[in-house]
Amino acid sequence: MSAQIGVTGLAVMGANLARNLARNGYTVALHNRSTEKTDALLADHGDEGDFVRTETLQELVDSLEKPRRVLIMVKAGAPVDSVIDQLTPLLEPGDIVIDGGNSHFEHTRRREAALSQQDLHFVGVGVSGGEEGALLGPSIMPGGSRESYDSVGPMLEKISAKYNGEPCCRWIGTDGAGHFVKMVHNGIEYADMQVIGEAFDLLRSGAGIEPADQAKIFANWNTGTLSSYLIEITAEVLGHTDEKTGKPFVDVVVDAAGQKGTGRWTVVSALELGSPTSGIAESVFARALSSQQDQRLLAQEALPGHEASVELPEDFVEDVRLALYASKLVSYAQGIDMLTAAAAEYGWDLKLDEIASLWRAGCIIRAELLDDIMKAYAGQDRPANLLLAPAFTEAIAGAVPAWRRVVATAVQLGIPVPVFSASLAYYDGLRRERLPAALTQGLRDLFGAHTYNRVDTEGTFHTMWGADRAEVEGVDTH
Amino acid sequence: MSAQIGVTGLAVMGANLARNLARNGYTVALHNRSTEKTDALLADHGDEGDFVRTETLQELVDSLEKPRRVLIMVKAGAPVDSVIDQLTPLLEPGDIVIDGGNSHFEHTRRREAALSQQDLHFVGVGVSGGEEGALLGPSIMPGGSRESYDSVGPMLEKISAKYNGEPCCRWIGTDGAGHFVKMVHNGIEYADMQVIGEAFDLLRSGAGIEPADQAKIFANWNTGTLSSYLIEITAEVLGHTDEKTGKPFVDVVVDAAGQKGTGRWTVVSALELGSPTSGIAESVFARALSSQQDQRLLAQEALPGHEASVELPEDFVEDVRLALYASKLVSYAQGIDMLTAAAAEYGWDLKLDEIASLWRAGCIIRAELLDDIMKAYAGQDRPANLLLAPAFTEAIAGAVPAWRRVVATAVQLGIPVPVFSASLAYYDGLRRERLPAALTQGLRDLFGAHTYNRVDTEGTFHTMWGADRAEVEGVDTH
Repeated sequence: MSAQIGVTGLAVMGANLARNLARNGYTVALHNRSTEKTDALLADHGDEGDFVRTETLQELVDSLEKPRRVLIMVKAGAPVDSVIDQLTPLLEPGDIVIDGGNSHFEHTRRREAALSQQDLHFVGVGVSGGEEGALLGPSIMPGGSRESYDSVGPMLEKISAKYNGEPCCRWIGTDGAGHFVKMVHNGIEYADMQVIGEAFDLLRSGAGIEPADQAKIFANWNTGTLSSYLIEITAEVLGHTDEKTGKPFVDVVVDAAGQKGTGRWTVVSALELGSPTSGIAESVFARALSSQQDQRLLAQEALPGHEASVELPEDFVEDVRLALYASKLVSYAQGIDMLTAAAAEYGWDLKLDEIASLWRAGCIIRAELLDDIMKAYAGQDRPANLLLAPAFTEAIAGAVPAWRRVVATAVQLGIPVPVFSASLAYYDGLRRERLPAALTQGLRDLFGAHTYNRVDTEGTFHTMWGADRAEVEGVDTH
Repeated sequence: MSAQIGVTGLAVMGANLARNLARNGYTVALHNRSTEKTDALLADHGDEGDFVRTETLQELVDSLEKPRRVLIMVKAGAPVDSVIDQLTPLLEPGDIVIDGGNSHFEHTRRREAALSQQDLHFVGVGVSGGEEGALLGPSIMPGGSRESYDSVGPMLEKISAKYNGEPCCRWIGTDGAGHFVKMVHNGIEYADMQVIGEAFDLLRSGAGIEPADQAKIFANWNTGTLSSYLIEITAEVLGHTDEKTGKPFVDVVVDAAGQKGTGRWTVVSALELGSPTSGIAESVFARALSSQQDQRLLAQEALPGHEASVELPEDFVEDVRLALYASKLVSYAQGIDMLTAAAAEYGWDLKLDEIASLWRAGCIIRAELLDDIMKAYAGQDRPANLLLAPAFTEAIAGAVPAWRRVVATAVQLGIPVPVFSASLAYYDGLRRERLPAALTQGLRDLFGAHTYNRVDTEGTFHTMWGADRAEVEGVDTH
């Protein structure tokens, strides 16, 4: 019996995707560097579907129908290249190599270019949903040639999460497009978690609401426009009591979060694209700061707060909800702006409505909101910025007064709300008629002859600052 | 007559450094890909010192005393590699190749490693001060081997800016250390300009003070703790009237600033180092946003401000000055934190007091403040963060109430102050006893089994969220 797909790398994610494929009726060939994991999977779950046990990559390749489909599920980075190097000599033109790990999209672009030289397809696939999603239905973001999608797409769609019956899997675009979109998903996830944290902190430190009571507030929020997986599990985490101490669980957890990986990559990529993803950046930096525990301990003792005594706004909880919602919209607007910039830079025809649609289920950022985002980009008349889609203009406008009150209050109370305030600064910057960048340009022209443009004339100009201050036409040679 | 140093690449920066060297008594061999620039330099400035005209790199090399010193002044990137490739076959062991351009420090590390294989020294030198500085005395940040500094250091010190007679040039550290420090200098420069812009915008849009009157305010600020080159030239730019229209100059300049280059590199590097440089990042993003003019035009029409009517604080101008000062201190604290992280990461023994000392004159961020920063790091007892040096703890503490008032006011007025507010969020985050990162860790454990640490016990833990919520010891395998 020929297998329809082979999976190499049977750690939790690989094993769960293999099981998901088998449970959906595909015959799955299994391979792992050591056979122990293969045998454990077969012993525990061999009855879930049709598996083919293999011990070597040659056996794996020999077990597959043609064109072959091989899904690599190993650690991102050098291990992926290593498997590719071992695998490709065993393959034939037209075969398809699939990388389902969290690879950097630039690596995926490089690998796709290299394999296409050998007439092999390389499909970089972003998979979101964690271990449970991999087994029960993740959100899947495949890149690579359109031709390869004709072969692997139906399988991936079948094992993906469904939203109202629609698969959360669509072809994203060529080469690294799938991994790029997955990266931005994770960047938005960073911001989503940080704005939830800022809301929690404001309700706790500002309004004195204990975690157990906040659990009810978040559960209630989950019934409205904020409805999403992360809000749902926030209620669950905040409602949990630590069994050892009887304290709220969140109080016994060390408040230091790592920031390596895709969140960081997102911001680096945004910088390279010139896209202002300040909310995602602040959420990455908030984690970095949280991990500087030596400095934090010293600063707690040394640095005075000088908090102002301010009265909380009348309906502070509702204000915080609106500020969270507005900040979240900005994160999505910034993430989508990155996607638009990346499409131009890397030659991808990204369909923003389809991307939003496949984030509606299976992945960590799944949210009601994404259905509205999908609709905003579904027509011919795509907004230049998510906030300029009429539904979202209206939604954020309704939140602005509360958002201002919340940030102003936080600032006076000394409660750090880096993403709330960065998002509001972005909103106010975007809508501002004149920005002080004009002064920046003046300074740069003075100290470095970088030149400037004028609002009333075409051309590039330089003022002779050190001399008679005459204005001359000039070219920035720096 | 043998020349003591050769310069290849005679665009403005190269020509001015060559003249600076000659004016300081060194015999300088000149080379350019086309001889026109060489001849123009000799025609216009040949009488300023001893120059040796050469037409080829071979002639340049032959004209130099040994060990040879060759300063490359070409565009950063591939052109530097190209010159190195042509030059190195002509050199002998012990010769010194110097790159005085704005190269990325990773490239400098790579080139240094390659040249040291050939027993050549490679010295990556950061040079700040623009064209005028290059001629009259820049701030100079040389990296490379200590041995190479013994040879080129005295020359660089001689042509550098002086602060109270001390040269603004010190050996920074091995390989890419010089270019790294120059990069961070430029990142701080971005933030410095942005906070000045935010102050300008607040005084203009918040307090209604016209540019000409602000010129006087900035000139006055330049006599106090803010005293610096950038504040000085801000007064000059704001005081300038456009001759064509009679309007304030700053009003006729297009308010869009580019963000490519070293500012962006600084933030990318900070992300890789896990150092929270939110102020510098926000200044880079502010430029990126300013350049999105199509979106901005649409947003001006569509997005409502819903500004609150707030009364300005009593002494708003002084409040803004203090907010600017505090935000500037945070940018320096963040930049220095990056330097500390980079020293550990790249094996550099960075002397923070010496770095601050050589920024005191010649470069764009030169400021009185840097003398105080130098002193803060001069002793054995180096603070873990600039803000924890007693002098700066006191300085920023004095500014905190005004800083809070200014950010709260800006937020209510709808004036974007991304760096003021990011810096304040950093300050409040650093001094906060508990951050909501604990909640982030709880969420990550729930959806991805990422595990967490406890405040009361060593070890790594995971809660069985989907099951009985028992806590188990676990290892994050993600």
